[in-house]
Amino acid sequence: MPTLRENLGRAVRRLRADAGFSQERFADACALHRTYIGAVERGETNISLDNIERIARTLGLTVSRLFTEAEAER
Amino acid sequence: MPTLRENLGRAVRRLRADAGFSQERFADACALHRTYIGAVERGETNISLDNIERIARTLGLTVSRLFTEAEAER
Repeated sequence: MPTLRENLGRAVRRLRADAGFSQERFADACALHRTYIGAVERGETNISLDNIERIARTLGLTVSRLFTEAEAER
Repeated sequence: MPTLRENLGRAVRRLRADAGFSQERFADACALHRTYIGAVERGETNISLDNIERIARTLGLTVSRLFTEAEAER
């Protein structure tokens, strides 16, 4: 069963791509590094709340909504 | 306007007390330190996803639901 880290990463990858962002442009919009976004999308990072919030804001979502999307990933 | 850290802390404090946990017993149930839970409840900590997940599980909530509670804090 995928971890919440992995499901969050899948949701971020899907929502980021659906919003038309490349990984690099998305990283710039979040003021985070591209390799960091890559690690988040692969579920490798124990991401902190401040960075979760940056990602949600860039996607135009609340943090609760971002986790609803993550929890619906399979 | 309170930060999301602060609103999460308020929600954790409220839900933890409503569930009948002292801060110390709640920390034990989460396998976290009492001073760490105190810092989370005061919004002082840039908490990581793994610890957010421990807290939500101990409260019997999904992470999305915990953030819905946090976002409703004033």
